Amino acid sequence: MRVLILGGDGYLGWPTAMHLAARSQDVMVVDNYLRRTIAIQTRSEALITNPDLEQRAEIFQAASGKRIKTRIGDCTDFAFLDSVFREFKPEAVVHYAEQPSAPYSIRGYTEAELTLRNNLTTTLNVLWAIQKQAPDCHLVKLGTMGEYGTPNIDIEEGWIEIEHKGRKDRFLFPRQAGSLYHTTKILDTDLIWFYVRMSKLRVTDLMQGPVYGLSTPEADLDERLAPNFHYDDIFGTVVNRFLVQAVAGEPLTVYGKGGQIRGYLNLLDTLQCVQLAVDSPTKPGELRVLNQFTECFSVNNLADRVQKAGKSLGLRVEIEHVANPRKEAEEHYYNPAHSGLLDLGLKPHYMDESVLAAMLERIMLYRKNIDIAKIRPRVRW
Amino acid sequence: MRVLILGGDGYLGWPTAMHLAARSQDVMVVDNYLRRTIAIQTRSEALITNPDLEQRAEIFQAASGKRIKTRIGDCTDFAFLDSVFREFKPEAVVHYAEQPSAPYSIRGYTEAELTLRNNLTTTLNVLWAIQKQAPDCHLVKLGTMGEYGTPNIDIEEGWIEIEHKGRKDRFLFPRQAGSLYHTTKILDTDLIWFYVRMSKLRVTDLMQGPVYGLSTPEADLDERLAPNFHYDDIFGTVVNRFLVQAVAGEPLTVYGKGGQIRGYLNLLDTLQCVQLAVDSPTKPGELRVLNQFTECFSVNNLADRVQKAGKSLGLRVEIEHVANPRKEAEEHYYNPAHSGLLDLGLKPHYMDESVLAAMLERIMLYRKNIDIAKIRPRVRW
Repeated sequence: MRVLILGGDGYLGWPTAMHLAARSQDVMVVDNYLRRTIAIQTRSEALITNPDLEQRAEIFQAASGKRIKTRIGDCTDFAFLDSVFREFKPEAVVHYAEQPSAPYSIRGYTEAELTLRNNLTTTLNVLWAIQKQAPDCHLVKLGTMGEYGTPNIDIEEGWIEIEHKGRKDRFLFPRQAGSLYHTTKILDTDLIWFYVRMSKLRVTDLMQGPVYGLSTPEADLDERLAPNFHYDDIFGTVVNRFLVQAVAGEPLTVYGKGGQIRGYLNLLDTLQCVQLAVDSPTKPGELRVLNQFTECFSVNNLADRVQKAGKSLGLRVEIEHVANPRKEAEEHYYNPAHSGLLDLGLKPHYMDESVLAAMLERIMLYRKNIDIAKIRPRVRW
Repeated sequence: MRVLILGGDGYLGWPTAMHLAARSQDVMVVDNYLRRTIAIQTRSEALITNPDLEQRAEIFQAASGKRIKTRIGDCTDFAFLDSVFREFKPEAVVHYAEQPSAPYSIRGYTEAELTLRNNLTTTLNVLWAIQKQAPDCHLVKLGTMGEYGTPNIDIEEGWIEIEHKGRKDRFLFPRQAGSLYHTTKILDTDLIWFYVRMSKLRVTDLMQGPVYGLSTPEADLDERLAPNFHYDDIFGTVVNRFLVQAVAGEPLTVYGKGGQIRGYLNLLDTLQCVQLAVDSPTKPGELRVLNQFTECFSVNNLADRVQKAGKSLGLRVEIEHVANPRKEAEEHYYNPAHSGLLDLGLKPHYMDESVLAAMLERIMLYRKNIDIAKIRPRVRW
């Protein structure tokens, strides 16, 4: 199958490309290095230096014998994206090509405008390139669990039947997010749902939680094939921040009360989920929404897990509660459904002590690269 | 009160400016003539030629003694909009500055991209100009009833309490629209709701139905102060199309079965509603949503009303059902709430025979300008 991966240089895009290519899919990746550009501009460089996308593809081909096609360009440029679709004629497109940082999107007007324009224009362009060049192509869009926020009712998988004053209808599950970045993903969903209805497109929206992990069978072929690892306040997740703090001998900084619960998943499971979605395209006119995570826990619980894994390696790990730079509920109800991907065949890899210990050991190899100043929150909202 | 009107050259923007200025508000209007530009490009010129915005302000000042300040510029240019806010320091801003045509937004990629970019960037810029220059300013945003679509449950005013599996929460009422234009207004709402929560902005979202009417006390001071009147397939409403067809001796073209029900209102009531909203600002952090229409009827019922009014003037009016160029439900449940504006003091002007007859008589004065070719639908979805 011809699979086009937009945002193929990203933390998830690159491992997805290798995973699918290793399974003999015909894979093309597209990226304009926006994340790398923002990382340099904001002093948020990754812990481990990654070769550029074309070099990565060459290294991967040498290691695996499998070729990944590369196109460097900007998905907000419709003429460019249209030419990619016309040339490659994808049967599935995996759309990761978005500015993914919540703090960056909050930083100021320029960053807000870039995030809104980049994310929405890219999604519009993908929808139009599909309509024009590959109307039967299955779009696998990466959404985020953050679109739902933390409502006081159970979160369903994308849709909800509402009974109101004795009548019923089915709607997109209500969404309200905690950052502009997450809000652009809500706008993506609204836009996609419009074109799904109007042009009978095939779409799967994967509502993903925070992903952790550095190891995949393909990434492990060569150190230079490692996924990006950001631990800074702009691109780093809370998992990465805690792991780096543990290695650096700094206290784990829990924002506020630490009762914020999220659904997490292992990078290996993201690869499985994307593959399961690609392997089971939706019908024309169907927007399938799947909640993509394997287990829920609070930030306090995560800190305890990292502390325990650190201790097993002889690290002395302390936990410190700091003022929350974000406007978010620090204690809340959270019960999101997530059976759809399990029904498709997902076999979860949970965050046990050995997984965290392996990540800590990997990070210890790059200890000299750690710049602890990058971790402190520079953006408040 | 200093009131800034964005999109002040429009069908509603200009009468709103005159209405508020006549009541001694300090009014500034901003426009970049986008609608006039699109009208020329698509051969959709209005029936009655309107002077430009600066000329209109001069004519209005001569007729009423009241001054309306004008700024010609593009609200998608943040430096421009920010300078307008910095200079004028509005206490209320009425935001009409959007590409308002559903068929135009569906026409092709270029039009879709323009509509999405224009409408979303303008809304983002307004939200940021308020945050930077006038954080206490009350934003009165024109939404549309079209955001809700035609769900099978009663439509509430913007919000709904959902009870699900024994728990409850309050959400934005679910929205799914029938055109890209209407979808951009949904995206506006999501974007506004995010910044209302994050920056404690004051916002009223007026979910308006189709507006009809050519007469207001201020517009009637001078023929050259008339509102824009579009009857073409791009900017014209179904009311205007029927009225012009009646005058031209052409059959009224009902799309499909004609069971499409919408909530309509008289231009006089739009002016009242906007004024009522401006006069009662919301609290910081509050997004008030009001459904802005006065009566609901089907397209078939509207055709009957126009036929009857035409007969009273001696016009022979026929009704013809034609293939629907739009993807929309032609028979559906529709029961939207609309008590909020009545509670604020709205005194409705209903669409009775005399109102339609007066519009027909006005249009008859411009009969020679009618180009019936402009009415046929050129865009299908």
